[in-house]
Amino acid sequence: MAYTISHSRRLRSTPFTPGVETAGVTSYTVYNRMLLPTVFESVEFDYRHLKQHVQVWDVSVERQIELNGPDASRLMQMLTPRDLGKMKSDQCFYVPITDETGKMLNDPVAIKHSDTRWWVSIADSDLLLWVKGLAVGKGLDVRVFEPDVSPLAVQGPKANDLLERVFGPEIHEIRFFRYKRLPFKDTSFIIARSGYSKQGGFEIYVEGAEHGMPLWNALFEAGKDLNVRPGCPNLIERIEGGLLSYGNDMTMDNTPLECGLGKFCKPAEGNDHIGHAALSRELAEGPARQVRAISIPGTPLVPARAAWPLMQDGKRVGQVTSAAWSPDFETNVAIGMVDAGHWEDGTELTVETPEGSRSALVKENFWA
Amino acid sequence: MAYTISHSRRLRSTPFTPGVETAGVTSYTVYNRMLLPTVFESVEFDYRHLKQHVQVWDVSVERQIELNGPDASRLMQMLTPRDLGKMKSDQCFYVPITDETGKMLNDPVAIKHSDTRWWVSIADSDLLLWVKGLAVGKGLDVRVFEPDVSPLAVQGPKANDLLERVFGPEIHEIRFFRYKRLPFKDTSFIIARSGYSKQGGFEIYVEGAEHGMPLWNALFEAGKDLNVRPGCPNLIERIEGGLLSYGNDMTMDNTPLECGLGKFCKPAEGNDHIGHAALSRELAEGPARQVRAISIPGTPLVPARAAWPLMQDGKRVGQVTSAAWSPDFETNVAIGMVDAGHWEDGTELTVETPEGSRSALVKENFWA
Repeated sequence: MAYTISHSRRLRSTPFTPGVETAGVTSYTVYNRMLLPTVFESVEFDYRHLKQHVQVWDVSVERQIELNGPDASRLMQMLTPRDLGKMKSDQCFYVPITDETGKMLNDPVAIKHSDTRWWVSIADSDLLLWVKGLAVGKGLDVRVFEPDVSPLAVQGPKANDLLERVFGPEIHEIRFFRYKRLPFKDTSFIIARSGYSKQGGFEIYVEGAEHGMPLWNALFEAGKDLNVRPGCPNLIERIEGGLLSYGNDMTMDNTPLECGLGKFCKPAEGNDHIGHAALSRELAEGPARQVRAISIPGTPLVPARAAWPLMQDGKRVGQVTSAAWSPDFETNVAIGMVDAGHWEDGTELTVETPEGSRSALVKENFWA
Repeated sequence: MAYTISHSRRLRSTPFTPGVETAGVTSYTVYNRMLLPTVFESVEFDYRHLKQHVQVWDVSVERQIELNGPDASRLMQMLTPRDLGKMKSDQCFYVPITDETGKMLNDPVAIKHSDTRWWVSIADSDLLLWVKGLAVGKGLDVRVFEPDVSPLAVQGPKANDLLERVFGPEIHEIRFFRYKRLPFKDTSFIIARSGYSKQGGFEIYVEGAEHGMPLWNALFEAGKDLNVRPGCPNLIERIEGGLLSYGNDMTMDNTPLECGLGKFCKPAEGNDHIGHAALSRELAEGPARQVRAISIPGTPLVPARAAWPLMQDGKRVGQVTSAAWSPDFETNVAIGMVDAGHWEDGTELTVETPEGSRSALVKENFWA
């Protein structure tokens, strides 16, 4: 059953919404109280196209939080267990953010402008309120606010070709998770080699809503013979690639170690991170459950609306949190959280879906 | 153009979702990362029924934040300019919540269980993160978390009759914005005389998701001859009644005084509220703009997806943030924010809607 979405100012449109709707979006989700396109032609058509050509994605929902002031870097390090000490000023860092008990509040990408200015490109929670609350509570000298920045992603194997046409050959010098500021008409944008797919590409941080549609139009104009199309994060492709979704595959109930993010939890000595003590205990003991790829063979399942229990011998040993039929791998690809003792590669479990019980296979690695 | 909503675990279902979908919901919005029904038969049919009979509303999206511990009351007073000193332990208080600059972060209803335990029934922002951030930053001795509580509202002129049948005559002793705990099967619920309509009714705080559908079914079973129907906050009725919506009619850009909430900003001496200094300045100077009822005569307009500029002599003097056609008042009823100097009753302005410019009349009072 398909339900329509009721529009209101509260579900914010983006600078690219006129382009997205003219291009024929059919479905939305809501992410950070803003509209995120989810389907243009069909999830499967969009998936096939993403793997072959190039797509332009309105990911304005990746709202930015700016930390600006003398205490910006100190506050930034309080937020995350990842050591930011050696970060260069053209780097983007994926930074798990936890509370004082070591539980995940968000999994954003941080961009360092300078020691006194950062952007945090957030997943789906009002992280601004946590950062502001901490800053006010600690009496830090830093302003925390949402600037007028809306990311536009260009993803797919032809993303390099398309961006070269609009921004010039300097685009090739941008390394993975690094950025450059490049000119566009009478302004310039930060462009990072990053994005929520495994097909390669860029995220363009569009500063100033008025520049949104001119950029959107320039990309479609330049990419006609590359078969450029509008797109969006694709459920099938992101599960195949093991890209976790905050709110789906991890929530405030989980620690970074449970989410397979242990490599980002090796703090330097004297680390200020607010969850340092809690995570240190968990690092010593190991996590109680962990994210795994799960294969569910058989006929295609309807994507999950809620967690599906994973069972062994009648006992709950985990849950599937995202699932979709993969045309390329001819199985239902899924992401789940599995208890210790059951997460080894090849473990056979049962998953309780709304369409009945099915066999499920725990996998060490994702598909792509 | 109607867009469908893509389901995922991230857009949380509620304990009442099976009932809501069986009863024929057709549209949803997303509120606090959870599904909120918006239409059953049609907005106009639901409006007419709400004013004549009784409706059961799944308002689980009013998530609770629990403050629990020795510093709970101290923290609660830091959050709001409203003086909580004389609040009785069976009272519900509408409490504007502001940041350190006096800007609105949420406009919840607070329920006092005791000096060491509060619930905050939130509007659409992750207020939990602000409260936790402040508590951690200040080093307070209090736990802050989201308990398993999902409010179910019963609204409409026959709400008293329906609740008496399910909970007994004690229901009549509950005064406006007061609550009682009353038994239901082998449990009990806090029931407050409150709700997001002007038709009268109650909000039942359902503790434990497993009690959701039994209560839903009991209400529909008991109310057959009262013509009970499922419903939801109704756009037309809430605008007629001047019930503001956080995210629509006020945002983090506004102060409580701008939202007409000055009466809740008279703190006791020595008030701990985090925005005390900022609000004291504004109380002395008066707000720069204020919420007003706006009448837009003529043919029915499609409800607003974004703010519509309010103009006078070619100058922007405010904006309309919610609008809908009212069958009872035969005009488009609207809520807007109007600059000082233009907000007097009877001021004639122009509003720029997606369907063209229209005359708009500023009104001192809402319709109902």
